[in-house]
Amino acid sequence: MNLPGSIAAAPGLRVSEAGEHALIERIRQRIPASPPDLVIGIGDDAAVATPERGALQVLTTDALVEGVHFDRRWSPPADIGAKALAVNISDVASMGGAPRYALLSLMLPADLPVADLDALLDGFLHMAAAHGVALAGGNITRSPGPLIVDVTVVGSVRPRKLLTRAGGRPGDAVYVTGAIGAGAAGLEWLRAHGHDAAVPGGALADCVARYRRPQPRARIGALLGRTRAASSCMDTSDGLADAIAQICKASGTGATIDAANLPIHPGAAACFADRDPVLAALAGGDDYELLFTTSRRHRGRLRHVTSEARGVALTRIGELTGDASITLSRDGHTEPLPAGFVHF
Amino acid sequence: MNLPGSIAAAPGLRVSEAGEHALIERIRQRIPASPPDLVIGIGDDAAVATPERGALQVLTTDALVEGVHFDRRWSPPADIGAKALAVNISDVASMGGAPRYALLSLMLPADLPVADLDALLDGFLHMAAAHGVALAGGNITRSPGPLIVDVTVVGSVRPRKLLTRAGGRPGDAVYVTGAIGAGAAGLEWLRAHGHDAAVPGGALADCVARYRRPQPRARIGALLGRTRAASSCMDTSDGLADAIAQICKASGTGATIDAANLPIHPGAAACFADRDPVLAALAGGDDYELLFTTSRRHRGRLRHVTSEARGVALTRIGELTGDASITLSRDGHTEPLPAGFVHF
Repeated sequence: MNLPGSIAAAPGLRVSEAGEHALIERIRQRIPASPPDLVIGIGDDAAVATPERGALQVLTTDALVEGVHFDRRWSPPADIGAKALAVNISDVASMGGAPRYALLSLMLPADLPVADLDALLDGFLHMAAAHGVALAGGNITRSPGPLIVDVTVVGSVRPRKLLTRAGGRPGDAVYVTGAIGAGAAGLEWLRAHGHDAAVPGGALADCVARYRRPQPRARIGALLGRTRAASSCMDTSDGLADAIAQICKASGTGATIDAANLPIHPGAAACFADRDPVLAALAGGDDYELLFTTSRRHRGRLRHVTSEARGVALTRIGELTGDASITLSRDGHTEPLPAGFVHF
Repeated sequence: MNLPGSIAAAPGLRVSEAGEHALIERIRQRIPASPPDLVIGIGDDAAVATPERGALQVLTTDALVEGVHFDRRWSPPADIGAKALAVNISDVASMGGAPRYALLSLMLPADLPVADLDALLDGFLHMAAAHGVALAGGNITRSPGPLIVDVTVVGSVRPRKLLTRAGGRPGDAVYVTGAIGAGAAGLEWLRAHGHDAAVPGGALADCVARYRRPQPRARIGALLGRTRAASSCMDTSDGLADAIAQICKASGTGATIDAANLPIHPGAAACFADRDPVLAALAGGDDYELLFTTSRRHRGRLRHVTSEARGVALTRIGELTGDASITLSRDGHTEPLPAGFVHF
């Protein structure tokens, strides 16, 4: 079936009625002109790109699976497409790198409307354009069950700018960007109220928006790498508590976190008011902030990052320690830091 | 739950009982030592690798979806893991490149036995070792339905060695490696006889083996690129007829294929004896041979490839033409070439 991308799909047309080649052609017609360093884009057996001279390759893959990571009743297709790319850009940013190319692997239920695929692509390509990412290739196949959007991002980083989880040292200050708990609060609101309810305004609306379409901290990650202000870095996609635990494990340190300094999103604080909001915000996944550590002697570098952060808060939430424990101190007491989000 | 890779899983243990971090740790303990050019492997937010100096990056992704591309009753987990990587290596080979790194994105049903995951990884890593591919990273998540193995391979190719689908010219000879129809025949036999039946010996057993665990033509692809013997190339994963159509479309040519010269696998010829075996072999997917074209003046280069092919046949099956039609000639007649395998 001929289904050129420039012609609107018949209302209600399903992907199973379009055919694989027609869908690929439709995608190809939607993407902007390839950058000159993309030698071969969509349409051959593989994509071919020119690596940035003197840079390392950063490689990451992350999938959004319907019924696990999103619900089509709660997230419009455009947000699903945008988020699938955003979570990968976040991983590249946490290494201090810049994203360059994406591969998009789509597993589509046969009854998915072509209009939903178009919207998913629009969201993906909007996020790609915002971060200078070229869609270089991918794969389309049928799914016998869930809609799955699996994305690979290839980025680049200068060898001396690379950030890992392993560089933290006892005495380093622990920082987090933005606000925490928003993603979990947004998801909780959607689960409780369903897709039909109008999202309330204010802070909770911001949580829902952050859950549906997170904005990766690409600029801050690149700044932390370029200035070498951070000794270690990772993103908080599985929750802040998990990120702290992973940084400590990789760096061979402990940490003490000060509950009073945690930048809990006001919408999350309201959403979690019926329980311990600090623990809920620490454990909640689906934030795409950066957790990073900075040594004392690099405070000047960090001030430079702060001045270039364009309003994104960088909040000091604690310190790495020389022992193996990770503790949360509040109201003069200390307690073990709870574990983070678990996928299984 | 602590589940180190060095300790055998309890019999019947399911992945949902193991936990994401434990599964990742289990994978990490199974992989061999990283090559020196892999700066950061599994365990950080992204992998980091040193690009080959002066080479282009080759990027490809392809997924195997349960119920679409395989059936766990017909394919042992080790074969599923091996095939998921093989199909991507085949794509890199068809560009004249060498595979270097793989990212493994696993979507696992909660009740998948950990022993099956181990076997899947063993198959994947066996194929990786055979082709010099390092498992650099990936992702594990739960699947609410099918088992899905989505693989990205990053390879490299010298700029002047790159093969695409687009370089064919009228008058170029059309070649295919190995034998065709084997994958489709193997699948058909498995569908008809189920998993309980013992696979017969001989040619049909070879078809079943090729369906379950194809051997990508990595060596031939690299040779075709290095010697610049081929003007265009692609793999036959969606069938030979589809590959011919794609090469012609990208190169702006037609083609005439000689039925008498098609290297139909003897097992496929037997399996398809109840219909038109030529058309069945042309249309069948799941072969991972290379289709390529060679100009007259590069016959010397092709002889060099043949001499280095270590017993893999390179069969001339036809010629590219200057008109738009793709025809099959047999018994003194010509007919339009049928379309290939369709995924949707």
